[in-house]
Amino acid sequence: MIYLDNAASTPVRPEVREAMAEALTTTFGNPSSSHAAGRAARALVDRARDQLSEVLNCRPREVVFTGGGSEAENLALRGPLTRLQGRGRHLIVSAVEHEAVLETARDLQHHGYEVTELGVDRFGLVSPESLAAALREDTVLVSVMLANNEVGTVEPVEELVAVTRERSTALFHTDATQALGKLPLDVGRLGVDMLTVSAHKIGGPKGAGALFVRHGTPLDAVVTGGGQERNRRSGTENVPGIVGLGLAAQLAERERESEAIRLGGLAERLRGRIRELVPDAHPTGAPFGRRLPNFCTLAIPGLEGELLLMRLDRAGLCASAGSACASGSQAPSHVLLAMGLPPSLAGAHLRLTLGRGTTEAEVEEAAEIVGREVAQLRTAAAV
Amino acid sequence: MIYLDNAASTPVRPEVREAMAEALTTTFGNPSSSHAAGRAARALVDRARDQLSEVLNCRPREVVFTGGGSEAENLALRGPLTRLQGRGRHLIVSAVEHEAVLETARDLQHHGYEVTELGVDRFGLVSPESLAAALREDTVLVSVMLANNEVGTVEPVEELVAVTRERSTALFHTDATQALGKLPLDVGRLGVDMLTVSAHKIGGPKGAGALFVRHGTPLDAVVTGGGQERNRRSGTENVPGIVGLGLAAQLAERERESEAIRLGGLAERLRGRIRELVPDAHPTGAPFGRRLPNFCTLAIPGLEGELLLMRLDRAGLCASAGSACASGSQAPSHVLLAMGLPPSLAGAHLRLTLGRGTTEAEVEEAAEIVGREVAQLRTAAAV
Repeated sequence: MIYLDNAASTPVRPEVREAMAEALTTTFGNPSSSHAAGRAARALVDRARDQLSEVLNCRPREVVFTGGGSEAENLALRGPLTRLQGRGRHLIVSAVEHEAVLETARDLQHHGYEVTELGVDRFGLVSPESLAAALREDTVLVSVMLANNEVGTVEPVEELVAVTRERSTALFHTDATQALGKLPLDVGRLGVDMLTVSAHKIGGPKGAGALFVRHGTPLDAVVTGGGQERNRRSGTENVPGIVGLGLAAQLAERERESEAIRLGGLAERLRGRIRELVPDAHPTGAPFGRRLPNFCTLAIPGLEGELLLMRLDRAGLCASAGSACASGSQAPSHVLLAMGLPPSLAGAHLRLTLGRGTTEAEVEEAAEIVGREVAQLRTAAAV
Repeated sequence: MIYLDNAASTPVRPEVREAMAEALTTTFGNPSSSHAAGRAARALVDRARDQLSEVLNCRPREVVFTGGGSEAENLALRGPLTRLQGRGRHLIVSAVEHEAVLETARDLQHHGYEVTELGVDRFGLVSPESLAAALREDTVLVSVMLANNEVGTVEPVEELVAVTRERSTALFHTDATQALGKLPLDVGRLGVDMLTVSAHKIGGPKGAGALFVRHGTPLDAVVTGGGQERNRRSGTENVPGIVGLGLAAQLAERERESEAIRLGGLAERLRGRIRELVPDAHPTGAPFGRRLPNFCTLAIPGLEGELLLMRLDRAGLCASAGSACASGSQAPSHVLLAMGLPPSLAGAHLRLTLGRGTTEAEVEEAAEIVGREVAQLRTAAAV
């Protein structure tokens, strides 16, 4: 099996598995317990918090561990609203956000909030000008992702933050789920108030994510109870998951630059090879330098996307059309539609996302499989 | 180290660790992906859902996996409210609920909901009469736990559900976090609409819980996004955590009756032995038959609780005063206060909770340690 769906989830790294197994075996206390077993668990959570805060260049106490990226995004969007009610009820999100942001914004619309969805250009980029035009006096929150999960486009978050600061008092959240381990995530440089990460996209476990919350950011918990995570997220900490997140983030950051070069080269080769075999395959997303290095996305005209993916799967290649969350859905992707791709092209969108384990040989074989399956589908359609 | 704080958290069972390690190693796909790697992950989630639904005697689709018990309780309390707004905005909870219910109810009070907290008797029991008196036409939700986490009192949930059905259209949620693996949890017999469980109290991992939601119960997600868990909880499923929850629940249920007898005997012995050594130690909670078998809770007059716990910890005994979530807090427990225990007694409350690994020798030694440390504290105080 060739696995080129690392944007959906990644294999857990052996070092991370070992650290988690160790935590699962020896450190079973509740981190809130004050006895020895509890303190041992607390120490693991603290260490992971230190690891992640080093990667993000923030203070440890600015990290809130959650049950995953989606929960972190819900916390980012929902958490500040009550305290900011005096300032307004207007939110701005980009039209290409992950469902955890878009659907949450839509849910908030049903509860009396007004939401502006910023359009993007054909590369999937949000323009600072469109954000400037959308900002209002009553805008309380802006959420634009650092890198898109369907085409890998890297948004100009620093510029968008600057525009937000110039024109409003709104908070700025960015979804860095796909960016972690691929781009530098220095929250000082980015200037964001909140930033979401997830473990299972970087060789860590599912069920662990975190929200960076800049000191002083108004925030109420979404999950209330025992008051863990400094009252920002209640519930017994997922100690092995948090251990896995901290270590995976540290390792991914350490290898970030070399992996970006390696994966960038492999993705380029994959794209080139597929276009040799399928000359009308149309690259989607942004050009080199404005997209994540591990993304290779293509629209293939005249094909039914689901059918192609099924054939690739049968041939041993795990690929996707876009977000895993929308798998099986026949509707064209909201991201591709926002980018102005005709629905006919969007239907046959192919997302190949490389990861730590991806080899040159796999990339060659994957291109062959894609070329062969596309050709066979076209022959079948022509008969 | 003798670990008698199994109500706070439990060691992960070896079988569960192995199943999780297997899931962490081999099954890394996103359950929402339609390719082979995704389907393999989906199969693990499905199997765990089957296992848990067998334990609860419900349909698999009535199980919603969450990131833990607290999140499940938030979903139970918050999830139905929007759809029931036409019926009313009144909630009833018992005064001895876990913080995840109590604090959530209090948070809802700040958002325009009215909450009645039902008092309890000296055993910690909620009376059906007090619930009957509190139910109103605009009551939309009742939440009373199946078994209390600080003293182990088992609430008369079946009767409370019957009263609720007679007098209102309110939904009934019960927190079965401590009850799972100790009491039969047949949701048909209990009659509840929603029921919360958590993995790490029964030899499963932290970071995995579930809410039973009876078919037809109005519910909106608290964590929105990709629409996982049939739109009731978004976010990539914590596959290894869910695997651990399903297996731990199945194993706990299989051993439930024999363990209840074994632990009941050990707890009785522990209680008796401590009372021999500390004759004025005062058992708290309900009498035998109305409390969880693995609970031994005592109030010890004239002592400072935190000081005693620190000494026990230093002597190698992990114990607690009550909820782990409130560890380190100097305030008397809300549960003991609701039971009418004088604050002076509440301050020196000792919760010893037994688990699968607890042996007879440990119980003997724990009693010795408690007796010795109490005597030394008292001698020191007398000097």
